[in-house]
Amino acid sequence: MSVVDVWPVGSMALLTQVEADSLSLSSQGDLYDLYRNCSLAVLNSGNVTDNSKELLDNFSNFEINVIRNERGLKLELINPPPSALVEGQVIKKLRKHLYAVLRDIVQMQMAKDPDLDFIKKKYATESAYITNQIFVNLRNANVLKAGIKPNLAVCWGGHSIPQNEYDYAYQVGLELGLRKIDICTGCGPGVMEAPMKGSLQGYSEQCEQEKCRMIGLTEPSIIAAEPPNAMVTDLVIMPDIEKRLEAFVRLGHNLIIFPGGPGTAEELLYILCIKLCKENKHNFLPLILTGDKKSEGYFKALEDFLIKCFGKDITRYYDLIIDDPKAVAKKVKDNNDTVLDHRTITHDSYCFNWDLFIPHQLQIAHPITHEFMHSLDLSRDQEPWQLACNLRSAFSGIVTGNVKENGIKAVAAHGPFKLHGEKEIIESLGQLLESYIKQGRVLLSQKEYKPCYVLE
Amino acid sequence: MSVVDVWPVGSMALLTQVEADSLSLSSQGDLYDLYRNCSLAVLNSGNVTDNSKELLDNFSNFEINVIRNERGLKLELINPPPSALVEGQVIKKLRKHLYAVLRDIVQMQMAKDPDLDFIKKKYATESAYITNQIFVNLRNANVLKAGIKPNLAVCWGGHSIPQNEYDYAYQVGLELGLRKIDICTGCGPGVMEAPMKGSLQGYSEQCEQEKCRMIGLTEPSIIAAEPPNAMVTDLVIMPDIEKRLEAFVRLGHNLIIFPGGPGTAEELLYILCIKLCKENKHNFLPLILTGDKKSEGYFKALEDFLIKCFGKDITRYYDLIIDDPKAVAKKVKDNNDTVLDHRTITHDSYCFNWDLFIPHQLQIAHPITHEFMHSLDLSRDQEPWQLACNLRSAFSGIVTGNVKENGIKAVAAHGPFKLHGEKEIIESLGQLLESYIKQGRVLLSQKEYKPCYVLE
Amino acid sequence: MSVVDVWPVGSMALLTQVEADSLSLSSQGDLYDLYRNCSLAVLNSGNVTDNSKELLDNFSNFEINVIRNERGLKLELINPPPSALVEGQVIKKLRKHLYAVLRDIVQMQMAKDPDLDFIKKKYATESAYITNQIFVNLRNANVLKAGIKPNLAVCWGGHSIPQNEYDYAYQVGLELGLRKIDICTGCGPGVMEAPMKGSLQGYSEQCEQEKCRMIGLTEPSIIAAEPPNAMVTDLVIMPDIEKRLEAFVRLGHNLIIFPGGPGTAEELLYILCIKLCKENKHNFLPLILTGDKKSEGYFKALEDFLIKCFGKDITRYYDLIIDDPKAVAKKVKDNNDTVLDHRTITHDSYCFNWDLFIPHQLQIAHPITHEFMHSLDLSRDQEPWQLACNLRSAFSGIVTGNVKENGIKAVAAHGPFKLHGEKEIIESLGQLLESYIKQGRVLLSQKEYKPCYVLE
Amino acid sequence: MSVVDVWPVGSMALLTQVEADSLSLSSQGDLYDLYRNCSLAVLNSGNVTDNSKELLDNFSNFEINVIRNERGLKLELINPPPSALVEGQVIKKLRKHLYAVLRDIVQMQMAKDPDLDFIKKKYATESAYITNQIFVNLRNANVLKAGIKPNLAVCWGGHSIPQNEYDYAYQVGLELGLRKIDICTGCGPGVMEAPMKGSLQGYSEQCEQEKCRMIGLTEPSIIAAEPPNAMVTDLVIMPDIEKRLEAFVRLGHNLIIFPGGPGTAEELLYILCIKLCKENKHNFLPLILTGDKKSEGYFKALEDFLIKCFGKDITRYYDLIIDDPKAVAKKVKDNNDTVLDHRTITHDSYCFNWDLFIPHQLQIAHPITHEFMHSLDLSRDQEPWQLACNLRSAFSGIVTGNVKENGIKAVAAHGPFKLHGEKEIIESLGQLLESYIKQGRVLLSQKEYKPCYVLE
Repeated sequence: MSVVDVWPVGSMALLTQVEADSLSLSSQGDLYDLYRNCSLAVLNSGNVTDNSKELLDNFSNFEINVIRNERGLKLELINPPPSALVEGQVIKKLRKHLYAVLRDIVQMQMAKDPDLDFIKKKYATESAYITNQIFVNLRNANVLKAGIKPNLAVCWGGHSIPQNEYDYAYQVGLELGLRKIDICTGCGPGVMEAPMKGSLQGYSEQCEQEKCRMIGLTEPSIIAAEPPNAMVTDLVIMPDIEKRLEAFVRLGHNLIIFPGGPGTAEELLYILCIKLCKENKHNFLPLILTGDKKSEGYFKALEDFLIKCFGKDITRYYDLIIDDPKAVAKKVKDNNDTVLDHRTITHDSYCFNWDLFIPHQLQIAHPITHEFMHSLDLSRDQEPWQLACNLRSAFSGIVTGNVKENGIKAVAAHGPFKLHGEKEIIESLGQLLESYIKQGRVLLSQKEYKPCYVLE
Repeated sequence: MSVVDVWPVGSMALLTQVEADSLSLSSQGDLYDLYRNCSLAVLNSGNVTDNSKELLDNFSNFEINVIRNERGLKLELINPPPSALVEGQVIKKLRKHLYAVLRDIVQMQMAKDPDLDFIKKKYATESAYITNQIFVNLRNANVLKAGIKPNLAVCWGGHSIPQNEYDYAYQVGLELGLRKIDICTGCGPGVMEAPMKGSLQGYSEQCEQEKCRMIGLTEPSIIAAEPPNAMVTDLVIMPDIEKRLEAFVRLGHNLIIFPGGPGTAEELLYILCIKLCKENKHNFLPLILTGDKKSEGYFKALEDFLIKCFGKDITRYYDLIIDDPKAVAKKVKDNNDTVLDHRTITHDSYCFNWDLFIPHQLQIAHPITHEFMHSLDLSRDQEPWQLACNLRSAFSGIVTGNVKENGIKAVAAHGPFKLHGEKEIIESLGQLLESYIKQGRVLLSQKEYKPCYVLE
Repeated sequence: MSVVDVWPVGSMALLTQVEADSLSLSSQGDLYDLYRNCSLAVLNSGNVTDNSKELLDNFSNFEINVIRNERGLKLELINPPPSALVEGQVIKKLRKHLYAVLRDIVQMQMAKDPDLDFIKKKYATESAYITNQIFVNLRNANVLKAGIKPNLAVCWGGHSIPQNEYDYAYQVGLELGLRKIDICTGCGPGVMEAPMKGSLQGYSEQCEQEKCRMIGLTEPSIIAAEPPNAMVTDLVIMPDIEKRLEAFVRLGHNLIIFPGGPGTAEELLYILCIKLCKENKHNFLPLILTGDKKSEGYFKALEDFLIKCFGKDITRYYDLIIDDPKAVAKKVKDNNDTVLDHRTITHDSYCFNWDLFIPHQLQIAHPITHEFMHSLDLSRDQEPWQLACNLRSAFSGIVTGNVKENGIKAVAAHGPFKLHGEKEIIESLGQLLESYIKQGRVLLSQKEYKPCYVLE
Repeated sequence: MSVVDVWPVGSMALLTQVEADSLSLSSQGDLYDLYRNCSLAVLNSGNVTDNSKELLDNFSNFEINVIRNERGLKLELINPPPSALVEGQVIKKLRKHLYAVLRDIVQMQMAKDPDLDFIKKKYATESAYITNQIFVNLRNANVLKAGIKPNLAVCWGGHSIPQNEYDYAYQVGLELGLRKIDICTGCGPGVMEAPMKGSLQGYSEQCEQEKCRMIGLTEPSIIAAEPPNAMVTDLVIMPDIEKRLEAFVRLGHNLIIFPGGPGTAEELLYILCIKLCKENKHNFLPLILTGDKKSEGYFKALEDFLIKCFGKDITRYYDLIIDDPKAVAKKVKDNNDTVLDHRTITHDSYCFNWDLFIPHQLQIAHPITHEFMHSLDLSRDQEPWQLACNLRSAFSGIVTGNVKENGIKAVAAHGPFKLHGEKEIIESLGQLLESYIKQGRVLLSQKEYKPCYVLE
């Protein structure tokens, strides 16, 4: 048995006795498991796997203890992954991430308690309450920087991508870094790592590598499958995918979508749903789709699908830039200037897009069940934002069936999810998903992919 | 009408919409008044007066608006005291203090809401809840520094003192600063300023002036009468005097008491009460009484009073050092080392003395009424800590009658407070108070002092 | 025998073997004595005396060894003044100053060697060579900050001043500090300390105490009599009084003259001499004379003397501000803006006034002998700048006779210096000097002053 | 014509008028050309070519002007390489490098002047003078850090290497960075870049990316062919290859040699020559040869050659580690500890190995002529260090003939250099060089390589 002590970094260890005890008291229960598993995922940073279960099985004898002492909170790691250690010490970034996990799980626990009456007294709507909670989470994680001019680019895209796409995302990151633009991603491998790596290089060429922020937003149910890559400087664990997505769009000043699989499609539809809401007509939330020369076909297919669903006009909601990292970075920089002007005029915060309207449906967690998937209306006979919302749920379900523990179990037990809707849409969706599978965009692991869905 | 804008400093301006609105919504009500008055006191830093009312009257046309905007929260000051401005800009330290007031008043407001059932579920006792809240207040104010070795000396003493006592406290501060020992006081003039000034000089001679922490702990009901002096680097507004005193003793690693008036006596009895509790037999909380040559008589009188009340043994609870700043600083340094060892062994936090037992009676605010004052049992026929507790309340009442708005009003309406108890104690108390009045230790202002109490 | 080791701070200890040996090789000779005496003066910081000899006698058994080792250069102090130590360690500022002494004395030694042919090849004139050397000295001491906007105020005035003048200079310093204006003085007590102390306070109120620069320019022959005060952050030892004065006027963006004695008069005449040169007609070098209410008479006498010597027009060469620290600071700030504009237009360096013309006579050291003093022509029958130059020499001689070792010896041996010139000037000079003696502006020590000069 | 202004960074722009004029005065002469060409090389950072001439030809209309102004020295670039600009501004690292070039060329110019008599007076030997000058160069470039514990690894190896070797060197750099070990290289591409890139990543994982020092030592005659890579944080231009090599071995605490071509062999023989000197018997200067699995054959051939020349014992002078980056980093760390102990005992500086003996022959620049190459004695019939010295010269000549302007011209004019010596040595040398050519280790460009030497 190997035991490694981790001493607190910064102010992370200043928990009250009650906060500290909320983890240790419950050490036999769910909260401890959640805490342990997220911590393990963090320590496993850089060791890529698609399957949370594999990770958890590989380190089944890993344990973590939180010990209050004179310097704050000490963490005691039993049998940590050896890759997390250098000369017997946990790598400092991982130490910081371990405390980020601690911080965010305590925060989740604390936020759980207030009764609804209390909340209703203060917040106009449940929507408002959720948005406030997200703000509090991000503030707590110290990623909101009041007064700093808009400079955060959210990068979305596949975690399982070929070398050429990795290199392209790196080049985009480099050009962003040279312009001192920070990166925010979902914090795993692939497109979530490449632009961060490029950005560090770019910042370093501008002699400001210490200022390079690389924010990774994750959630407990995905962190094990996509552990934070080695670049992430600020790790935040949001309670669930809905709050995580809301955090992305309220934090980011630009959204860049690189080629990816169903998860990326989910993100794209999430943001299109928001942009299609008439309430956001005047909210400037720039969206860029980009990839290298080889990805031209990929984007062609995606755009065809979108046009099929929403009509030709949908192409005005984003910029598509093929094979030109410098052009992407310049566009982002220009957009930042526009965001700056816009926020200054509307007096909305530079660091949190309060004004953005997000439909309540996007804010609440729908448990992905066979019934829910079956109930989704995938037809054009509704408001465009509503269709986008349903399509997003469809992709979300597919991701769940592919990589999330509960989804994998549900599909194993009850067979693939059934999706149905307007014929043209369903066909187009089928083609898109087919092409993803062929391009190997669905899973990291080598095993042959068996779809977790049936289109009807 | 002059209007001055204050832009946010650091992260202080990151309020949620609900937090920000809690101030502006209530702008017609009590919270706004509290906020306005504390802000005015801060802006009046350095302009010494004894009478909150005087200050408030002098600037009756002062107003403050909190305005949410793109960089966070902007404060708009209408007719601020001219002394707060340099070249049309509010002095930066005052700007920071304005945001500290904002932070702490929002915090108080937020902490008010949770219902007791909720609290009882989590906290073993009300005492534990109070201590937790104090920790949260201090953490929120960023004055808890996990992992830093014990180095905080709390300085208590008069705000109305002669030049020689000021100079002596300065010398003590200088010797502390040369040893990189930080200062925490009640943040007003006199002994609350002098050691801070000396400490900055000492730190500066050690080329670490930027690390010199000067923490000022105050409370809404006293801040106007004793506005933060120009040295305070970290201002914290605790909800009331009880929480403020608890904050002092849990934060500080050494308590130094300089000559002072009834407020200082209150503080001394508060700490003796705690030290006399048998639960604290093994908790190391060093106490030093010190002053220059001329103050020898003052301390003689005080010691006589204490021996009368508690017997000869009481002198073992503190060190009395006359006219030797270097000896004080060396003693503090030695004590810091002992605190370090002690906390390391007991695994209690370096920056917050969780283990210290504080009687519940000291934690809760007794409204100072004529009845309450009359009910105090000032006799030796009880546990020593209980007598100390009652004596402390007596002095607290006298301070309230002298300088706090509500006290002044009560005394004006119903005549002086009546105190009674064992004859010897009452006599000794009378002599002590008499000597304070003669030495001019009771009020700053020039008017003749009319006692707010009668001893029976 | 007490021995204290001082370890290097920063890069100061990076001497080549030859540089290091230049001190140790000569340890039996003049260079060692110079080094030892300056180091002793530094360690004696704050212990004020007027008489270098007294200081040297008090610590006749002090020695200092320079020892090359693995971390750079270690200094070994034998029997250092106890006031330099806190808990057995030399105060850090003094440690830095010890290395500043080392640096500047090595620099002086290195600069001595190049033969004149070599210099002539490179420099148009000897004047240009001297100015270059001063720049090199200051650059070496890291007090030149390229690109920082003009913000350095040189403060001149007496080292022996009454409390009210000290307080006034402190207030001026406070107002300067609140406006983030740095101070440069001759680094001793009195007016050389007070504005620095005020400035630290002002900077601290603006939360920038770590940026507060307090430059002390001294020279080997005066450092023992006027050891650096405890505020000086950057100590520079210039080779002699002429280079020191040139350093002041090329470094400073404002010159402020407080009341003082003959040394201050020397400085005033030095700067008037420069301003009277027609070559400097367009060089903006602002000069402010200021003091509190009580000093009105002092300045009246001074102004009368100047008008007698140079005519009414001389009053346009300076601003005289009585009893208004805020007005002084505002004037300095306005002047800084003008200097900024002026240098930007002329492309002269913000941090070194290359364009200023300084007559060669002011650049070279005249040994103060009885012959030299006797030869000075103090009549109006010459160019005004030439009269200013001669008057400055007269005051310089008087300072030398009062406090410098060689001067004291010469006067002891040959009687007072004899000065003569135009009757009106001599009379006026006599009155001025008389008033200085009466006001106690000539010497710090208590002994009765016996003038070192005779006016004929 | 494009014109870009570069404003000074830090203190680099504080030149005296004479120093500044030394560049502009001579702007028609050699110094300007040298300055211009080095600046162009810096701006061309990252654009790899083998041939200085090509670079210079591509930007024949590039010019650079040094303009003294109010903020120091402004550089005016006419027609700079577009790759040096981001949004119209020169990348900051390149700006710093431009000032490094300025600094070092002014330094070279200044150091040229003192006459020999002057030097002889101060320095025991010419060797001592050279070593002092190297120290002064490095101190001036701010790469000597007194008091920092030994942590600098010099990495030598090919600039033209296959991807697998690049990746391996990156991994070694990563492991060094995780242990906070700094890198020093010759500052070009290939092995001079890869470990730096890895090191930044490692430092970043330890959250200290701002402390990652990557020193590039170059020289005017090679900088155009091997412009500083994008990682270099501290660029130093040494006067010539001999001073550059001496700088490497006095600065570095570990020397790591990766696979490379003739330049790398030159470096290896240089260091073996020094280690073979009996004067260095007790000087600890650790040497590690390392490469990935594929490089095993390369090192076999090299070791065979060394054994042929110096006998079996030579293998004790270095550690050979194949395919184990972690083992390399651990060895380096252990060695650093030993260096620390050793220097502490001998009191030699942590940051400059003064005690190391370097034969005078290695210190002086031999012009590479056909005669000199012909005169080299490559036989075992001499002291081993002398043979190493001559072999080193042979490789040096080959490098010169391959990539340096003068060498290319000489070979073009007079045919290949002729080398001769003991048959076995010459044969073995021939095999080694042959294998280099086959492995493509000699030149970056695609053209077929025509050897610049003949072995006889």
